[in-house]
Amino acid sequence: MIPMLETTIVELDKAKMKSPILIEGLPGIGLVGKIAANHLIAELKAKKVAEIYSPHFPHQVLMQKNGVMRMIKNKFYLVPHKKHDLLILVGDVQAVTSEAQYEVTGKMLDYCQKKGVSNIITLGGYGTGKMQGVPRVFGIVSNKVLVESYKKYGVIFGESRGSIIGAAGLLIGMGKIRKMPGICLMGETHGGFVDPKSAQSLLEVLCKIVEIKVDLKKLDKRAKDSEKFAKKLEAEAMGKMGGAPGKHDLSYIR
Amino acid sequence: MIPMLETTIVELDKAKMKSPILIEGLPGIGLVGKIAANHLIAELKAKKVAEIYSPHFPHQVLMQKNGVMRMIKNKFYLVPHKKHDLLILVGDVQAVTSEAQYEVTGKMLDYCQKKGVSNIITLGGYGTGKMQGVPRVFGIVSNKVLVESYKKYGVIFGESRGSIIGAAGLLIGMGKIRKMPGICLMGETHGGFVDPKSAQSLLEVLCKIVEIKVDLKKLDKRAKDSEKFAKKLEAEAMGKMGGAPGKHDLSYIR
Amino acid sequence: MIPMLETTIVELDKAKMKSPILIEGLPGIGLVGKIAANHLIAELKAKKVAEIYSPHFPHQVLMQKNGVMRMIKNKFYLVPHKKHDLLILVGDVQAVTSEAQYEVTGKMLDYCQKKGVSNIITLGGYGTGKMQGVPRVFGIVSNKVLVESYKKYGVIFGESRGSIIGAAGLLIGMGKIRKMPGICLMGETHGGFVDPKSAQSLLEVLCKIVEIKVDLKKLDKRAKDSEKFAKKLEAEAMGKMGGAPGKHDLSYIR
Amino acid sequence: MIPMLETTIVELDKAKMKSPILIEGLPGIGLVGKIAANHLIAELKAKKVAEIYSPHFPHQVLMQKNGVMRMIKNKFYLVPHKKHDLLILVGDVQAVTSEAQYEVTGKMLDYCQKKGVSNIITLGGYGTGKMQGVPRVFGIVSNKVLVESYKKYGVIFGESRGSIIGAAGLLIGMGKIRKMPGICLMGETHGGFVDPKSAQSLLEVLCKIVEIKVDLKKLDKRAKDSEKFAKKLEAEAMGKMGGAPGKHDLSYIR
Repeated sequence: MIPMLETTIVELDKAKMKSPILIEGLPGIGLVGKIAANHLIAELKAKKVAEIYSPHFPHQVLMQKNGVMRMIKNKFYLVPHKKHDLLILVGDVQAVTSEAQYEVTGKMLDYCQKKGVSNIITLGGYGTGKMQGVPRVFGIVSNKVLVESYKKYGVIFGESRGSIIGAAGLLIGMGKIRKMPGICLMGETHGGFVDPKSAQSLLEVLCKIVEIKVDLKKLDKRAKDSEKFAKKLEAEAMGKMGGAPGKHDLSYIR
Repeated sequence: MIPMLETTIVELDKAKMKSPILIEGLPGIGLVGKIAANHLIAELKAKKVAEIYSPHFPHQVLMQKNGVMRMIKNKFYLVPHKKHDLLILVGDVQAVTSEAQYEVTGKMLDYCQKKGVSNIITLGGYGTGKMQGVPRVFGIVSNKVLVESYKKYGVIFGESRGSIIGAAGLLIGMGKIRKMPGICLMGETHGGFVDPKSAQSLLEVLCKIVEIKVDLKKLDKRAKDSEKFAKKLEAEAMGKMGGAPGKHDLSYIR
Repeated sequence: MIPMLETTIVELDKAKMKSPILIEGLPGIGLVGKIAANHLIAELKAKKVAEIYSPHFPHQVLMQKNGVMRMIKNKFYLVPHKKHDLLILVGDVQAVTSEAQYEVTGKMLDYCQKKGVSNIITLGGYGTGKMQGVPRVFGIVSNKVLVESYKKYGVIFGESRGSIIGAAGLLIGMGKIRKMPGICLMGETHGGFVDPKSAQSLLEVLCKIVEIKVDLKKLDKRAKDSEKFAKKLEAEAMGKMGGAPGKHDLSYIR
Repeated sequence: MIPMLETTIVELDKAKMKSPILIEGLPGIGLVGKIAANHLIAELKAKKVAEIYSPHFPHQVLMQKNGVMRMIKNKFYLVPHKKHDLLILVGDVQAVTSEAQYEVTGKMLDYCQKKGVSNIITLGGYGTGKMQGVPRVFGIVSNKVLVESYKKYGVIFGESRGSIIGAAGLLIGMGKIRKMPGICLMGETHGGFVDPKSAQSLLEVLCKIVEIKVDLKKLDKRAKDSEKFAKKLEAEAMGKMGGAPGKHDLSYIR
């Protein structure tokens, strides 16, 4: 009988893991991290091993087409892999207040420590407000010695500015206090729309880092649609089509 | 000496219950669930067995005509019945923040588990923004196997969309985690006014499900008043009476 | 080493009390209760016996003319008296959220129970939005049997409507759950300005109830000033002086 | 495995301290206290001895030029000194709600008690909304007996009014409850811009109090820039330059 006063992780599979690397892709700017992580899960047929419920998530349940509701949650998926299993963290939402984010992130790290996570990679978007050709991938690490080891995979350091809001930053920051090294990888993105193209760039770098092969074709179609949308936005911004971007377009943003 | 830091359930009657079915009808859209549950309590002469106080309810006490105040609260009522007693949950308010809803719902489920609740039925309205003839009753279950067993009572599945906010959803969602199966029954309603007619539809279905007979006549008068009000609203909306709906009408909404 | 996570009561005098009656007069509408309680403390030379600090009070300290700061707090004062000592609760502020009010009130009741409080009398204003001659005193009790016993002191029952917000209501409501009977006495007041005249009416009734004599003369001057202010407001409202009430007047309200 | 539900102090150096004096300079009005405390740390080559993390700080991590992120935090620095070491408290932010401020301040005082802090000096600005020549230094103490002992250092008592918001006030107020005497020193400042000149005045007084010598030259340049800015503001206010102060100027305020 546990009143849900705290974030609660329900383990579906209690099997041991092989020194896993945590890969986080919760909703954030351009949904870049979320798209990348969900693509990994689908392509690698990852298995759901735990569910995360939290009083800091909206007090709503979602109605599904099949007549069954489901709670809003975050989830851990597992992919057995060489020396280090991949533990992938995805979900519907992030908590919105500081106190809630610290609590949820703390509980996630508790689980990670228990499972022997050796390394943390968080995925996100880096909003520039501009369109770009091939999105670059920026990195921020928890410890200076890591910079060089990630540069060789094409990660760009020292060009991102400001702060990282939410789980992508806190997992690395709080992970450092618990002696778990980590990197936040950010795909360059406009920030004003969902960006699967940026997710593609991110995945290319990530796959090299964790030494895994993933078919990115299915992201191509989404990326092309996104690019069309981006060009339309740009055209509008340049006044070619006149008027402000339509509200229906912006409703696409999340 | 308990400072009220948490939701507190005060048991007025500690007698054992017969594998009860929880029926929830707290305030929500169109007050559909609340009207239905209160009607059940009145018609079945249900007995109050517990009171729920919470720091997440307004810090107010209500002044009654007889010179006695009472705190804002939720209440459990009991109706002894065949194989499964009915445990009916009603009250003045619902908590408003996510954290509060999760906490209150968790405490309610603690009590339900202690009392051996076997099944959860939550009652609510499903707002369509439209007037309708005979309101339909939509359902969302916690587990796919339940869909078929409820269809035979006229519950419609797969046509409701979006999310259920508050206790009607969370009791089912959090109940599922605690292995208590459940259904949320939603009476079709406009959403802009109190709707006893929708509550009537809801009760007709509910009575079949729990195999109980309840006189619905007393709801008839209220339902007819509500229908008049609805038609007036509709007329106004179609411009026949001109002007926007009067503010005094809308103050009727809660 | 106690970080101040909860409301904390610091006892300055741990002496036993004689089955005390709690009299509460924290800031509220028209400051009616606060003025009455502070007047009692001054006239009866009550002794401060405890201080209440709370993380739910503003995170500010007040600068005093003598160069010494003081924290924002609530206080208990004691007056030895016949069969029942008087324990008077006053202070700078009330907590503003529901959760905070329930917590603070719970801690106050813990202290009251420990000290053997037998009865609770809370003091407040009842806002009518109108000027009145001699303010009446309304009452709301925790238990119906108390109505008759208070009527003989001139307390009016059944004419106040709505809800009582804050400590004046919660102390009675939560006190009832802890088996401490109580009454909330409300002096009729306009609601738009500080009202010592209403406090005077309140004290007259209270003094009869607790069988004590208090010189009310010092309140007279304040009451007369308040009445002038009230008449000015009324005149303005009737347009005799033209224009809206000046902002400097309304800054008087608290 | 500690989820970060509370403010957490991570000690980097557990060495004993010599009955230290706490000197606090967190961000506040005109950044007066922060500039003064940071100047002390730089000039005295103080050593960082503890870091403070809190769920009440923003859920962000800061990206640094070198590609390494860092969490938002507060920090304690130590300067060994004669009879009383100096323990200097600085940081990026203060918590914004009452509950958070009380919790964070409580944890800081826990640490101070453990380290044997004998005295607390908090630094801040006292906003006047006016330009001034040489900023005066106002003081507010926790206990009346301290007034005379601080006057001889040029601290002005009895001229500051109102309340002190945040750590500068609460550390003294809550410290008093824990029997740690203290003073809040406030440099006179406009309030509308960062004011190193006021910090200079503050440091001159502070250095006399704690019997230490600090080179203030490096603050001179900043103070002169600040003065120019102040004069420009004043000129604008007097209409010499016309128009409202530019938004880019005001963005300087923090």
